[in-house]
Amino acid sequence: MILSTSCLFIHWFFLFFSFFTSKGDDNRRESSAFINPDMDTETYYEGKNMALFEEEMDSTPMVSSFLNKLANYTNLTQGVREHEEAEDGVRRVPHMGTFIGVYLPCMQNILGVILFLRLTWIVGTAGILGSFAIVSMCCICTLLTAISMSAIATNGVVPAGGSYYMISRSLGPEFGGAVGLCLYLGTTFAGSLYILGTIEILLVLVKETTANDMRIYGTCCLLLMALVVFVGVKYVNKLALVFLSCVVLSIMATYAGAIKTAIKPSNFSVCLLGNRTLKNEMFEKCAKTDVELWNLFCDSPYLNATCDEYFALNNLTEIQATPGVLGEVINGASPSSKNPLRVPPANNDKLKNYVFNDWATYFTLLVGIYFPSVTGIMAGSNRSGDLRDAQRSIPIGTILAILTTSFIYISFVVLFGACIEGVVLRDKFGFSVKTKPVISILAWPSPWVIVIGSFFSCCGAGLQSLTGAHHRVIEGLQEWVNDGIIRSNVFGHGKANGEPTWALLLTVGICEIGILIASLDHVAPILSMFFLMCYLFVNLACAVQTLLCTPNWRPRFKFYHWTLSFLGMSLCLSLMFISSWIYALVVIVIAGCIYKYIEYKGAVKEWGDGIRGLSLNAARYALIRLEEAPLHTKNWRPQLLVLCKLNSDLEVTHPRLLSFATQLKAGKGLTIVCSVLEGTYMTRGDEAKKGEQNLKAAMAAEKTKGFSHVVVSSSLRDGFSILIQSAGLGGMKHNAVLMAWPTGWKQDRDSSVRRNFIETVRETTSAHQALLVAKNIDHFPANQERLKEGTVDVWWIVHDGGLLMLLPFLLSQHKVWRKCKMRIFTVAQMDDNSIQMKKDLQMFLYQLRLNAVVEVVEMHDSDISAFTYEKTLVMEQRSQMLKQMQLSRTEREREAQLIHDRNTASHSAANDKAAGATSDRVHMTWTKDKLQNERNKHKENMAVKDINHSNVRRMHTAVKLNEVVVKKSCNSELVLLNMPGPPKNKKGDDNYMEFLEVLMEGLDRVLLVRGGGREVITIYS
Amino acid sequence: MILSTSCLFIHWFFLFFSFFTSKGDDNRRESSAFINPDMDTETYYEGKNMALFEEEMDSTPMVSSFLNKLANYTNLTQGVREHEEAEDGVRRVPHMGTFIGVYLPCMQNILGVILFLRLTWIVGTAGILGSFAIVSMCCICTLLTAISMSAIATNGVVPAGGSYYMISRSLGPEFGGAVGLCLYLGTTFAGSLYILGTIEILLVLVKETTANDMRIYGTCCLLLMALVVFVGVKYVNKLALVFLSCVVLSIMATYAGAIKTAIKPSNFSVCLLGNRTLKNEMFEKCAKTDVELWNLFCDSPYLNATCDEYFALNNLTEIQATPGVLGEVINGASPSSKNPLRVPPANNDKLKNYVFNDWATYFTLLVGIYFPSVTGIMAGSNRSGDLRDAQRSIPIGTILAILTTSFIYISFVVLFGACIEGVVLRDKFGFSVKTKPVISILAWPSPWVIVIGSFFSCCGAGLQSLTGAHHRVIEGLQEWVNDGIIRSNVFGHGKANGEPTWALLLTVGICEIGILIASLDHVAPILSMFFLMCYLFVNLACAVQTLLCTPNWRPRFKFYHWTLSFLGMSLCLSLMFISSWIYALVVIVIAGCIYKYIEYKGAVKEWGDGIRGLSLNAARYALIRLEEAPLHTKNWRPQLLVLCKLNSDLEVTHPRLLSFATQLKAGKGLTIVCSVLEGTYMTRGDEAKKGEQNLKAAMAAEKTKGFSHVVVSSSLRDGFSILIQSAGLGGMKHNAVLMAWPTGWKQDRDSSVRRNFIETVRETTSAHQALLVAKNIDHFPANQERLKEGTVDVWWIVHDGGLLMLLPFLLSQHKVWRKCKMRIFTVAQMDDNSIQMKKDLQMFLYQLRLNAVVEVVEMHDSDISAFTYEKTLVMEQRSQMLKQMQLSRTEREREAQLIHDRNTASHSAANDKAAGATSDRVHMTWTKDKLQNERNKHKENMAVKDINHSNVRRMHTAVKLNEVVVKKSCNSELVLLNMPGPPKNKKGDDNYMEFLEVLMEGLDRVLLVRGGGREVITIYS
Repeated sequence: MILSTSCLFIHWFFLFFSFFTSKGDDNRRESSAFINPDMDTETYYEGKNMALFEEEMDSTPMVSSFLNKLANYTNLTQGVREHEEAEDGVRRVPHMGTFIGVYLPCMQNILGVILFLRLTWIVGTAGILGSFAIVSMCCICTLLTAISMSAIATNGVVPAGGSYYMISRSLGPEFGGAVGLCLYLGTTFAGSLYILGTIEILLVLVKETTANDMRIYGTCCLLLMALVVFVGVKYVNKLALVFLSCVVLSIMATYAGAIKTAIKPSNFSVCLLGNRTLKNEMFEKCAKTDVELWNLFCDSPYLNATCDEYFALNNLTEIQATPGVLGEVINGASPSSKNPLRVPPANNDKLKNYVFNDWATYFTLLVGIYFPSVTGIMAGSNRSGDLRDAQRSIPIGTILAILTTSFIYISFVVLFGACIEGVVLRDKFGFSVKTKPVISILAWPSPWVIVIGSFFSCCGAGLQSLTGAHHRVIEGLQEWVNDGIIRSNVFGHGKANGEPTWALLLTVGICEIGILIASLDHVAPILSMFFLMCYLFVNLACAVQTLLCTPNWRPRFKFYHWTLSFLGMSLCLSLMFISSWIYALVVIVIAGCIYKYIEYKGAVKEWGDGIRGLSLNAARYALIRLEEAPLHTKNWRPQLLVLCKLNSDLEVTHPRLLSFATQLKAGKGLTIVCSVLEGTYMTRGDEAKKGEQNLKAAMAAEKTKGFSHVVVSSSLRDGFSILIQSAGLGGMKHNAVLMAWPTGWKQDRDSSVRRNFIETVRETTSAHQALLVAKNIDHFPANQERLKEGTVDVWWIVHDGGLLMLLPFLLSQHKVWRKCKMRIFTVAQMDDNSIQMKKDLQMFLYQLRLNAVVEVVEMHDSDISAFTYEKTLVMEQRSQMLKQMQLSRTEREREAQLIHDRNTASHSAANDKAAGATSDRVHMTWTKDKLQNERNKHKENMAVKDINHSNVRRMHTAVKLNEVVVKKSCNSELVLLNMPGPPKNKKGDDNYMEFLEVLMEGLDRVLLVRGGGREVITIYS
Repeated sequence: MILSTSCLFIHWFFLFFSFFTSKGDDNRRESSAFINPDMDTETYYEGKNMALFEEEMDSTPMVSSFLNKLANYTNLTQGVREHEEAEDGVRRVPHMGTFIGVYLPCMQNILGVILFLRLTWIVGTAGILGSFAIVSMCCICTLLTAISMSAIATNGVVPAGGSYYMISRSLGPEFGGAVGLCLYLGTTFAGSLYILGTIEILLVLVKETTANDMRIYGTCCLLLMALVVFVGVKYVNKLALVFLSCVVLSIMATYAGAIKTAIKPSNFSVCLLGNRTLKNEMFEKCAKTDVELWNLFCDSPYLNATCDEYFALNNLTEIQATPGVLGEVINGASPSSKNPLRVPPANNDKLKNYVFNDWATYFTLLVGIYFPSVTGIMAGSNRSGDLRDAQRSIPIGTILAILTTSFIYISFVVLFGACIEGVVLRDKFGFSVKTKPVISILAWPSPWVIVIGSFFSCCGAGLQSLTGAHHRVIEGLQEWVNDGIIRSNVFGHGKANGEPTWALLLTVGICEIGILIASLDHVAPILSMFFLMCYLFVNLACAVQTLLCTPNWRPRFKFYHWTLSFLGMSLCLSLMFISSWIYALVVIVIAGCIYKYIEYKGAVKEWGDGIRGLSLNAARYALIRLEEAPLHTKNWRPQLLVLCKLNSDLEVTHPRLLSFATQLKAGKGLTIVCSVLEGTYMTRGDEAKKGEQNLKAAMAAEKTKGFSHVVVSSSLRDGFSILIQSAGLGGMKHNAVLMAWPTGWKQDRDSSVRRNFIETVRETTSAHQALLVAKNIDHFPANQERLKEGTVDVWWIVHDGGLLMLLPFLLSQHKVWRKCKMRIFTVAQMDDNSIQMKKDLQMFLYQLRLNAVVEVVEMHDSDISAFTYEKTLVMEQRSQMLKQMQLSRTEREREAQLIHDRNTASHSAANDKAAGATSDRVHMTWTKDKLQNERNKHKENMAVKDINHSNVRRMHTAVKLNEVVVKKSCNSELVLLNMPGPPKNKKGDDNYMEFLEVLMEGLDRVLLVRGGGREVITIYS
């Protein structure tokens, strides 16, 4: 039953997996995310009574059929899968239980070389309590990590890839890669460690070792092992149980020995000269009468020989190495000054007879040396693919294995402390006990059980580490290839029998680095770092997901709580820094580099990592924070909302608008580009999507970094209005609107363009947003152009916040405008002191730290020109006409066509007349009287109202200003002008456009600027 | 001229300052940000010819009048200011030039005790090249910092608050506070350093010092100085020049002495016994025949006395301490093994005659000890308020001072190395040269020039540091009070003469800590850290602002470039970690705590800091990144768009909608709350703002963290439509819409509510967004309620992505729903195996890791009940009627009122009849025949069309489903139901509402759920 359901869900996995890993575009993915995109549900549900849900049955199946289909698919894929298995023979049917599949591999990986080679020394050096602390810390660390691992393993179906998969699926490919690398390097260095251990056991038995001996023999051993892995990797795995039994036997022997000491202490004894321990390999009897011993210290075998001073002065004592549990050693196990020889002084022949203990080792370093003996807890989860019920087996098996090994370690600490004499414990290589591992003197029936057992277990562990690392690198690289992080798998090119050669060479190479270090005590902290880093990430993955309330994070493991993971994480970090802060930093930097590399390369696949929630949260927090604080003038920067038009092909009409936005922002700050389509979303939704894609493409082409919106609205006006009101989020709101001048507004019979423009101006004003209107936007320079030697002319007529002066500065930050000089013109009127004004302005600009040439243009009250009157007249007529046309259109059915025709006719006649009049009266000066005359004349001739006096004055301003601007700035690259506000009275709307048109006449690139009602530039720091 | 303009701008500052620091609300600030909110411009501009800009002249003045007004205000505020000055007498008229105001204070602050007390020793210990490296590194570091400072100082008008103001205005109050604290602690510890220096000079002259001597005398000295500060702080500042002249005299004397050595080497000599330097205080002649010397080493004055072994074996040699520039000492100045006595071994009386050098000191530690002699570069900028032209004086003065002092230091390094014998240089306290500072032996005319000079300069510097620190803490705390970081200024309570007592006590207390350390060499690195931290922030401020393109960052200082600041920052960080990584970490942690504290307390004032740009950029980056990656099912979480209604008072109608959103999100993820007002933004803009404020208030009350939008649109439909399309930004888009069920839709004569609802449903569907509709939203639990023992019932009828199952899980994360149990009901139809379904479903839920009770409800094809037919009939009649009413309204003028009346009459008649018929036929089973009969009956009686067969089936589903749901779940706390899709055919719209109404009948809290067209829950990890 369990088997069948487990199969069922593994097959579901394949089904789902094929959907979610398909590299198609998002739309396809979304639509295919449902289980049955193409089943003939229509017929299936015919006659059923769930009529309410009938219409969408193809996308949302009934629950019963959904469950049915899952089962059907299972059967289908079952067949496919069996076929596959028969074909490549690699995939095994999951069959393993908790004991065989998780518990034993974990036990075998955890129990290791350190137990036999260093635990006695650690107990001797740190004392029982110290070692107890070290062992407990490490065991708790792994236990907490195992709990986190269990939570990950019970959070849904575990894919058959082991811990690397689990972590990368939880924390994303970047962290996954970093963790994978840490695991790989850790395992490889573990290989070095085991090989060094093997060599140490062998060599110490034979002779005094040097670092170079270790290097030479270690390299030989490594090559041998690599050969074994290369030739027959299958046999290595078969031997795992043999190696485990070696270890178990040795442990049994130790326990037995410890019990035996209680009954009858063993006959191992240590020879002390004064308070110095002697190596007892070269002599048998611990007495001065012993000839061999005598010869070691004296220059001749005779009694009158000159002897070493210390030898002469001190007595020899012999103590029992293992006084037994009942002896009172337990009190003496703390590092005392009993054995004061620490570091061998150079060039003293006699001293080599003593045993030197490097018990100057810090407590902190011991953690690094001990930690490798608790690693290996992932052995079970790495086999997830082979487990019958991975979600049940992994937690139970792993945690049981950790508890078992923790018990063994802690009991050993106590046993060693209780049974073995301190001086012996501190003897790292067992010189004082005939150069055997110190633990072996406790063994029963024979010390050789331990020697042989530990030798084989070391060998086996080394082989397994090599194999494991080798496989991990192959799988990892394959994963990276799959995830698109690296292009092709050079290390994956296999040799004939399917084992890639390059991967093995890489592993052997890295392993050799470890061997060249030539000291177990120096390699151990390195691999500790890598494993701790990996465990840290596992704990982090859990804690982050809980704290972010990731909806998919619903681990079924009962004993999980995020505080445990957090504790585990802190413990890992502490252990890293405790054992060596330099190594810790190095490993963190390595992991960071890998992270950045993968982030840079960009993983193709999205695994839905928990970290995404983190960045979402960060963004949300930043936005809310930004919203809280009011913005200061000093920090004002244009956050643009660019109003774009899309043509009928949904392409951007004026891409230069985007270029200009880019130039203005120099790549910083917020840009939102938006456009509106007319219609309803239901009908034009796809077009809106296409438009948005085009917009994005245009933005990418113009290097505009920002966001885009294309919305469908029943009217353009409404759409733009709401976007102006609501675009942006939280603190990321636009404060300026950029749009193109509606060039064709005069020709356009439809007044909506005109009205839209004016309404937009009004709206930005009441929303306190700045407005930038670019005339001839298509003539603006592209991002690739570099303007040379030109000027950017600012016509500063009214002060509305200083945006006018800030803009040229911002433009000058961009390469296109860098070489343009800024000129500021201002207008002095009748009673202004233009010389003083220029001085003031220069000083003001100095304080604003802007480099600009200042010019004050005098514009004394001249009479209003005839041209102005003409212009005004024409304008007023035109707007009158337009108004009536508009009227006629909306009330077409009411008003008689007749009246309209009559109007039009009379107007066109008037127009002809006015045009004729204009030609000979341009620029002639008018007096009030003349005006009156002219007005009367017009009155008589035409059916239009009086010329509005204020309109004449406005037109006069426009004409006069335009005159000076054209005179001064016709050759400048860009002219910035104050944009006058729209008339408060709605009647003047049409005239407003005309004024602006007149104002900009004869100029090429113009930017009308209207402040947002606040200061944007300040002289203060 | 310069004075007047400088005044002018300082007055502008006050003017602007009063605007920007006003604590009014934002609106007020925005409108008052312009210069002249209330001048009678209307009359002023009458008759001027800038008519185009006339209408807004009150908010946007003409440039000429703007410039005029600045001048006017200046005169105005000038008077006010002078009045103020006369009143409190504190503010001085800025009058200082570069030399007096910046250069001299900087010089005086930079040149200090280390030069006289430690530089010789540093040269002796590190060698010429080493010391050159140390001195250069420190000087370059301060030079780069000075360049950054200059950039800040030339970036607009510098307020009169010194460096703390500058930094806090650039980097924000958080960093400002952290830097301020660093500066304060640095200055206070500098006080300790100078006091320790003073004591060292004094005591060493008199006797051998111990740490406790230093502590006792140091504390006395501190108390004395505190008294001076307390009594007469004014006199301290007056004496500054006296102290400076002491230093300058000493330096002159040294140079003179160095030149003199070239002519005639001085007669100082050092006495060496073997290769050990002897203290030459107790004897005069360096010969074994000297009685005093003899007595030091031998036990009796006679020749046969027992002498020290080393004394007996070695010869005495006398060497010149200052062989002069022409002597070849320069080669021997590197630390050689000439003087092997490093650490005095304990308990050896004879050894106290030798001079011990702790030249085991690391090179790295020397940096920490030397650094205090380059600090003090901010002395100039701290006086910004007193400077005539701060922007010119600060850069020039500071940089010149740094260059001068750098030259002095470097020349001294070379001079010492060249003129003084290595053994003497390494003699820290000058024991071998009669216990004077070693530098004094170089002085001309007398060593006492240096002794006295350094003593006074030490004293003076100590006093000044105390005064400075004392003032800084007062000003800093006052600033904090002003900025609203702390409530009231306990340390600011002054005593009678205006000098706050508590502040002085705090300073003295911290200073005492430094004195208790009792070693100049240990205090120096501490204050180095604080100053380096401060310099680091200054550099950071510049680099960040350039890199973020802050628009207001336009420093006028020509030599500034961000790479220099970045280099300076790196150098500061390196120096910190070089001199002591532990101290560095501690200082960083302290600064971090202050930062977090101020951030937590929240500064009231916004200074427009550069850091804001950083968080804006970070948010933008995060949003763009989020947008790039497609979202994975695993990580799907509801990002809600809550559609709210505002009532006529612009209050939120259903605040429980927000509570429910909070409960659903458990505070994580995105929530956007929005509402729409009908109208135009120009007219209702203020109401929209008020509505948004109410919305925000309601959100805060309901603890909904998120964003809000209230927009004005010409129609509600358009508004909501565009919000659904475009709310959110980049990766922060909503994927689900939450709204309330329009309860009153039946009563409402206006069909717009109905239509809006259905259109919203349609729109969310086509936008692939999920939809949640809450019935009886006002009955939903508030955030404070805790439901006990209830159930949340999910009626899983169709599978549309799994949202239905995810929601109860998300709800259960919130306290309100924590105790509710989840039940999942599903419907088994005719040919479903309900037992198998239950099993499958249980397994599915197990794999989804959801705890729920599963129930399969059998719903076999029963006949359609009479009730259903009745219900359908009534519904169809109603919708018919409504359609016609609607028709009648829009075409009121075309269609005759008569027809409408007729229709209504006939319908109501029919309604009455149907109602009568229903009462006795409920739940009676109908056959097809009966239906036909009934239908015919109706046909005869009424003027309605045939009952639509599919409508009957739908109604049947609704009725039947409702029956079982009510039966099973009427007591549950919440019922979640699949929401059927709206009919594809628009005709069915009205019926759709009726179906939903029937479906939910008799249930209290219902949530209709409609998936967004994608899987949102997965069984995979």
